[in-house]
Amino acid sequence: MSNKKQNILIIGGGLCGSLLALRLGQRGYNVTVYEMRPDLRTTDISAGRSINLAFSDRGNKAMKLVGIEDKVKKLCIPMNGRMLHDKEGNTFLSNYSGRDYEYINSISRGELNGLLLTEAEKHKNVSIHFNKKCLSVDFEKTTALFQDYHTKDEFIEDADCIIATDGAGSALRQSYFLEKKFLFSFSQQWLTHGYKELSILPNEDGSYKTYKNALHIWPRGDFMVIALPNLDGSFTVTLFLSFDEGEYNFNNLTTPEIVTEFFEKEFPDALKLMPNLVEDFFENPTAPLGTVKCSPWHYKGNTLLMGDSAHAIVPFYGQGMNASFEDVVVFDEVLDQHEGNLPDGEAGWEKVFSEYDKIRKKDTDAIADLAIDNFHEMKDHVANPIFQEKRKIEMALEKEFPEDYSSKYSLVTFNEDIGYREAMIRGRAQDKAILNMLSDGVISTEDDINDILDKVKTETEAILEDDKIAGLQ
Amino acid sequence: MSNKKQNILIIGGGLCGSLLALRLGQRGYNVTVYEMRPDLRTTDISAGRSINLAFSDRGNKAMKLVGIEDKVKKLCIPMNGRMLHDKEGNTFLSNYSGRDYEYINSISRGELNGLLLTEAEKHKNVSIHFNKKCLSVDFEKTTALFQDYHTKDEFIEDADCIIATDGAGSALRQSYFLEKKFLFSFSQQWLTHGYKELSILPNEDGSYKTYKNALHIWPRGDFMVIALPNLDGSFTVTLFLSFDEGEYNFNNLTTPEIVTEFFEKEFPDALKLMPNLVEDFFENPTAPLGTVKCSPWHYKGNTLLMGDSAHAIVPFYGQGMNASFEDVVVFDEVLDQHEGNLPDGEAGWEKVFSEYDKIRKKDTDAIADLAIDNFHEMKDHVANPIFQEKRKIEMALEKEFPEDYSSKYSLVTFNEDIGYREAMIRGRAQDKAILNMLSDGVISTEDDINDILDKVKTETEAILEDDKIAGLQ
Repeated sequence: MSNKKQNILIIGGGLCGSLLALRLGQRGYNVTVYEMRPDLRTTDISAGRSINLAFSDRGNKAMKLVGIEDKVKKLCIPMNGRMLHDKEGNTFLSNYSGRDYEYINSISRGELNGLLLTEAEKHKNVSIHFNKKCLSVDFEKTTALFQDYHTKDEFIEDADCIIATDGAGSALRQSYFLEKKFLFSFSQQWLTHGYKELSILPNEDGSYKTYKNALHIWPRGDFMVIALPNLDGSFTVTLFLSFDEGEYNFNNLTTPEIVTEFFEKEFPDALKLMPNLVEDFFENPTAPLGTVKCSPWHYKGNTLLMGDSAHAIVPFYGQGMNASFEDVVVFDEVLDQHEGNLPDGEAGWEKVFSEYDKIRKKDTDAIADLAIDNFHEMKDHVANPIFQEKRKIEMALEKEFPEDYSSKYSLVTFNEDIGYREAMIRGRAQDKAILNMLSDGVISTEDDINDILDKVKTETEAILEDDKIAGLQ
Repeated sequence: MSNKKQNILIIGGGLCGSLLALRLGQRGYNVTVYEMRPDLRTTDISAGRSINLAFSDRGNKAMKLVGIEDKVKKLCIPMNGRMLHDKEGNTFLSNYSGRDYEYINSISRGELNGLLLTEAEKHKNVSIHFNKKCLSVDFEKTTALFQDYHTKDEFIEDADCIIATDGAGSALRQSYFLEKKFLFSFSQQWLTHGYKELSILPNEDGSYKTYKNALHIWPRGDFMVIALPNLDGSFTVTLFLSFDEGEYNFNNLTTPEIVTEFFEKEFPDALKLMPNLVEDFFENPTAPLGTVKCSPWHYKGNTLLMGDSAHAIVPFYGQGMNASFEDVVVFDEVLDQHEGNLPDGEAGWEKVFSEYDKIRKKDTDAIADLAIDNFHEMKDHVANPIFQEKRKIEMALEKEFPEDYSSKYSLVTFNEDIGYREAMIRGRAQDKAILNMLSDGVISTEDDINDILDKVKTETEAILEDDKIAGLQ
């Protein structure tokens, strides 16, 4: 097939780019990847970046597609629920699902990225080059300008098409925006809060200092701390806090004394596990939290944005990496449908790119919005009585009716065969139904579970129908 | 008062900038305005731009504030409702309100802008300079770089504070975005549709060729034509059409024959009034329709975005100019509260700017969203039976209970004492209540009007309460 001789240039060899290179390599394309950083398999470049991430069913679907599910599983630490810590140090485990077999995983970004690069490089038709930074893309000519990190030499690469998986600060997206050659819709939205990574180190014997199989949360209304386990017995801890509002904020946490005072007051049990707090706090950077959406992702059949470059989201649903991996699955399905019609030139890629854009964007918009909802849920609602009652009812529904009920969280996280947008619309309607019926006394946690299921289903359908008639969907 | 010696630099002398200059001049500030275009009172620069606009109560509140309501009234042509034109040329007048004294106006952009400039220049402490284009703003130093249109000389202006009213392509907003010196949230969203201005010229005796006191609409589902009257007997006509979708679109309307065929088929009665169609069509530009939102609007007490530079919206609610005028009213109220505390320097302006930003942004976000809703309502829903029944019921409610009921349109357009956001939330809930009760047969246009009012009120409150409990407001 002539199209298999097509040369595809991928900008960025992070999680999405390396998976895409692997998959396109498997499909027989000539793939060249340029990555700005050094090879993370031989260089330690983790400082200050998220070193572990939540990995769940949508991400795993992509691993199945490329045949490395088992290898990835070895890197995973299951997290069955949220372990909530109150100010007195009391803990409460809130499962992610009423179905025992549904859980999320903590995984090392570096290990997973390294595995994907190694698997991609096994294909002779895939080549990966490190320390080559993309400066700009000429999307009309389908060429990209790179600079070598060491020599500072600049060079131009040509391809049949270019796919940019170069993250939230994408060079291709910047070229789309600045060149003003077509109508490019774009948004970047910053939260008032930033984040800083800290750590809970292992015990001397290498064991975990707190419960291993959970995502720990210290919700405090306006701010929070979370912790995810690593394979070496440590936890990566993240403080989410306002830059400039509230009694304590990133702008006024300027001395070891104030930082320690803040943790003593708000997170005393966490502080006991973190003798290294002050050192971490002042060594690690404070980073902002942003959402990026844009449209269109493609320019004709020349160039395409994928992964964070197309849709950077905040981390609160644990879906950033999963969404980027799912991009590759959806792109692969579009290729299945259209590859046979791919002529040698651009017209074929234009069909593929525009079809992918059309199918996929509504879902990445949805997960971006859901991730912001979950910011408020995690730092605040999880400690709110009516939300706790809702959670209790949903766990019971999922346990009793594993085939018939899934909470919003389950729809988003464990139902990889429906899109994020459908999960959002149904999940939000369910939440609204349950919260209002609890508030109005129509249901209570003491009721017969069959009655509750009937009422929740009926009310959810009514809410969906009302929104539809009002043109709100 | 020391603050009255403050020098305020205004970038842009359009509708918002000239009103702001007038009001700040009235308050005693030293005001300097730089406008990139020539003086529109002595130069014809209307080509291709909207030459008339909808003017309503929020805008008029600003005219009252500066004491020129009577002068503006002379420029106004009342439009009591929408005159809908179907394909067969049948017309149907749909009033904007059930209250006879509520209507909107068609007004000449140029005449109104000229009046505001003239009124502003009556103040010795206000000076206005034309043909000076702002290239960039140094918001840390509170200086702006300008270029003279004729000499091409560049010069820097200093001020105590700078307010940019330089429209959708604002130089200050661009400086905020490109400099990356603080976290600047920004979005630009383009519609798939663009617009082109056309015209219905007066009869030879100077009279109007169609009904004068209405906003004419030819709704066709995926596209539409509208027309607003001018004082000289003409109408400014606007075609809203997709750039590249549908049987006819801007990309394929490339010959006089196709343009004429399109109008013959879709707008035969309009075509009869427009012997000049083809000439207009190929002389006038096709322009895109975009929404811009951003945050924050201010940098410390140095600089502030106001009007379209802060919130450019699509024209479908007829609120673009009204929202910008209302900005000045809200800013004036904030000055009333804080001016007494304004010290000589920046700290005082920072309080004013941040307070204004906090109060105002939620409302301009709301009118931006409402304007996009109305795009779909105007081109499509106005011709939909259930929306027509809703409209009929709302007209009856407003007529029967002028003190007790206002439709979403009335809340937005004729209730200048509530904000756009409150109008949006209540208005959408009412729409949802009426549409669903009509659909479910709970109310009908034949019912007793008192019963309908009770049911609409009760259902609206229930919807608002349900959304509140679900955290959706």
